Amino acid sequence: MKIATLAVLLFSVWPSAAQNPTSRLHQQLRAYRSAHEKQILGEFVNLLSIPNHAGDTADIERNVQAISAMLQARGVKVELLRLAGASPIVFGELRTPGATRTIGIYAHYDGQPVDPAQWQHPAFSPVLRDPSGQIVDGQAQKSLNPQDRIYSRSSSDDKAPIEATMAALDALRAAHVPPSVNLKFFFEGEEEAGSPHLAEIIAKYPEAIAADAWLLCDGPVHQSGRMQVDYGSRGDIDMEMTVYGPAHPLHSGHYGNWAPNPIMLLTHLLDSMRDANAHILIPGFYDDVRPLTPSERRMLAQTPAADQQLEQELAIAQPEGDGAKLAEQILKPAINVHGIQAGHVGEEAANVISTEARASFDIRLVPNQTPERVRQEIEQHIERQGFFIVHQTPDLATRRAHPRVVKLEWGPGYPAYRAPVENPMAKAVVRSIEEATGGPIIQVVSLGGSVPMYLFEGKKHVPVIGVPIANADNNQHAANENLRLQNLWDGIEIFGTLFAHLGGNLGAR
Amino acid sequence: MKIATLAVLLFSVWPSAAQNPTSRLHQQLRAYRSAHEKQILGEFVNLLSIPNHAGDTADIERNVQAISAMLQARGVKVELLRLAGASPIVFGELRTPGATRTIGIYAHYDGQPVDPAQWQHPAFSPVLRDPSGQIVDGQAQKSLNPQDRIYSRSSSDDKAPIEATMAALDALRAAHVPPSVNLKFFFEGEEEAGSPHLAEIIAKYPEAIAADAWLLCDGPVHQSGRMQVDYGSRGDIDMEMTVYGPAHPLHSGHYGNWAPNPIMLLTHLLDSMRDANAHILIPGFYDDVRPLTPSERRMLAQTPAADQQLEQELAIAQPEGDGAKLAEQILKPAINVHGIQAGHVGEEAANVISTEARASFDIRLVPNQTPERVRQEIEQHIERQGFFIVHQTPDLATRRAHPRVVKLEWGPGYPAYRAPVENPMAKAVVRSIEEATGGPIIQVVSLGGSVPMYLFEGKKHVPVIGVPIANADNNQHAANENLRLQNLWDGIEIFGTLFAHLGGNLGAR
Repeated sequence: MKIATLAVLLFSVWPSAAQNPTSRLHQQLRAYRSAHEKQILGEFVNLLSIPNHAGDTADIERNVQAISAMLQARGVKVELLRLAGASPIVFGELRTPGATRTIGIYAHYDGQPVDPAQWQHPAFSPVLRDPSGQIVDGQAQKSLNPQDRIYSRSSSDDKAPIEATMAALDALRAAHVPPSVNLKFFFEGEEEAGSPHLAEIIAKYPEAIAADAWLLCDGPVHQSGRMQVDYGSRGDIDMEMTVYGPAHPLHSGHYGNWAPNPIMLLTHLLDSMRDANAHILIPGFYDDVRPLTPSERRMLAQTPAADQQLEQELAIAQPEGDGAKLAEQILKPAINVHGIQAGHVGEEAANVISTEARASFDIRLVPNQTPERVRQEIEQHIERQGFFIVHQTPDLATRRAHPRVVKLEWGPGYPAYRAPVENPMAKAVVRSIEEATGGPIIQVVSLGGSVPMYLFEGKKHVPVIGVPIANADNNQHAANENLRLQNLWDGIEIFGTLFAHLGGNLGAR
Repeated sequence: MKIATLAVLLFSVWPSAAQNPTSRLHQQLRAYRSAHEKQILGEFVNLLSIPNHAGDTADIERNVQAISAMLQARGVKVELLRLAGASPIVFGELRTPGATRTIGIYAHYDGQPVDPAQWQHPAFSPVLRDPSGQIVDGQAQKSLNPQDRIYSRSSSDDKAPIEATMAALDALRAAHVPPSVNLKFFFEGEEEAGSPHLAEIIAKYPEAIAADAWLLCDGPVHQSGRMQVDYGSRGDIDMEMTVYGPAHPLHSGHYGNWAPNPIMLLTHLLDSMRDANAHILIPGFYDDVRPLTPSERRMLAQTPAADQQLEQELAIAQPEGDGAKLAEQILKPAINVHGIQAGHVGEEAANVISTEARASFDIRLVPNQTPERVRQEIEQHIERQGFFIVHQTPDLATRRAHPRVVKLEWGPGYPAYRAPVENPMAKAVVRSIEEATGGPIIQVVSLGGSVPMYLFEGKKHVPVIGVPIANADNNQHAANENLRLQNLWDGIEIFGTLFAHLGGNLGAR
């Protein structure tokens, strides 16, 4: 994979979402942020400097301590929701005297794995870069350029909303405007690992998610740069696939054409699952897919298409999907093969038949698919291709007994979520963000990415609304992840406005 | 790929090819070797300790100096055949007064790339291991166990014949038996890189290959452990293939189903070229293949099949090739995909759509295929799959202009070779080896592997015979490459007998 350093140059500089303040509150939030930019950035850099791969327990605990301290500094009561073997949830409560409504804020403090070779600089040594990619000394500037970006793992995904909500509380306090709602902060520490313990933690601490609405703060805003809310996200189930060749590596000249080549077994199997145009070939895979509702169809029709701009900037001559737009494609299930590996390529290539070949998948689900059913359909399909499925590394006796053996290692997975798009609480969220940004925002039926939204609706089926703040070209999950400063500033104004207004009359403008 | 440390345990201990000496000369060669085993091993270890990847010029020069010194110590006149940018050929001549025949000996001193993570110990720190895999201190033993093996890159492929021929000269001198032929030693230094300059070097130094026969000493003996000669080898052309996705890595949730996934483009293309059963699907690919001659068919029928034993030891439930035996399969052309890489698998896996996906090939040719024609057929096939072919990394404008872009990087390649199996010189080689090993040897139509034999037949079309000495389970090209000591000892007796006898009457036993 090429280093993603071109992103800043390729993507046009997004327009700033920030218009002139439209209300007294908006002016106050803006003034606070302007006066405290370097302080906010300094706190953010401290948080970003802590490595945060979910598997690294010591690092995770350092994040937990740092975030707990950030909450407590704002008067938020902190509890760590612990479960053996899991990263703790940093859970905070801020009660507002007289408030009748509770709003939950979800974000995650863990990040994707880092491949240091792909980064321009160490992933946990945040740097500020100007739009040309030059490193900028922020503290030495008279004022920060909002088009500059902070580069660090998790700068966008997903520590940005943690910093933005904290700064929003500061800004409200400075303005002497108390939140109009009770607030719950729910910061997860293993979202990038597929949230393997989240359901169990919520089952153990069910009161933590009791609220009137949840804001799931993850993912990027629209590619046009305009702020958006999303009413759902795709589900996800991860899978690692390993197929086997000879018990030890063989010379490809002396044994080529005879010893089973695991690369060919793997590519053959992958090709049977999905074509190069994104269509899933597994029989029955689309059967459970709930068609879009009329309201969802209307919303989809109104979503602005950034396709042409993206195609140009990403050098894509022809997207997958037979001409369907991106916004529509992400409402369908997807089999993404995100890694494949066997033997070596390039300088390290050797004329060897490998003992195994591996592929790594993320499979995206939509309503009403379930991880269990999808897993079953995929396994049945693989068996029909003549493979014997194991879930542990097979011994040689197993490999001798079956012409084609495949090991499948499944992550736990979780289903998609969609909030009813007409929900009044959702409408109130949209109105508040529009006040904070000074113009109409984009509403999308669902994120393409996955957030475990479904767990937060609880027994009362409260709406769970996605409120992303990161720029779309943030190199999310890849090297050189970044956050445009303007997106952080916008986030502060958005969360400040939401906290101040969501306690109000749901019918009111 | 799994480390190949199981090889020693999995493979049965081969029977020793060495029978009781059948002639006075054989006794003398055996006695010399028995008395000088540790000295021979010491010299070999020194040679193996020099890293020998063809790209590393300084290492290559150290090999050149060491081998030159080895030759000169035996009175061989050394000349380095140099060409700008190429590893030098270490060329040696040893003239025998009165000899009327000249025999050329080819071997190569460079080795395959090393992946240190896969090796049990550093690849250029040779160690001796007993059949259970325990490290043995050879110098401390009273006598060496011929079933022990020396582990090091190039211990078998292909420094073994260099050491064996040198020790054979020593043994003949000790026995006061001069070679019956003039000898030429031609030690190449970039065979594993595909011999990219060999044709040019031979064109520059045509006299170097003038001889009455060439012995190409590379590759392993038969899987049964019996010595063999081969009358040919497959040709080879290497190729690196890169297909492209988006210009920078994208989140697979937000863009999956829309951004072209280069892994799927690649697997789709691979599957169109070759099925999982080794059959090549490219139209016309088999058209140039010369059918086996009746003599070749007879020889193939007489080649003992080790298939069942190999299937058991390699845990192969069903080989490729629709039931054809290994010996037959390696007489067909092959498309071997020996490496594939995109994104990451396992712990490093991330939910990313990669910018590119790569595969590395070795394509094996048989008479009368040519690298040029095969390259043309493959490129035409790839174009028919809708790909735009480039041979340099494409710029973004190219990627924007074509839905599917593939970069193909071809090695120079060379054709297969087959000696006429009835050639009298070839028969004399067989008889000498049978004397040295005390029993009938195996004769095979062709090695599955590739050796640039075709270059050595010269204008006079002299026979080029493959005389391998390495054990078949040597982990050639992989980690933990090894040579069984008995194979080195056998090699000394074989080369000693060949040097002493090949000047004789070709009709005589």
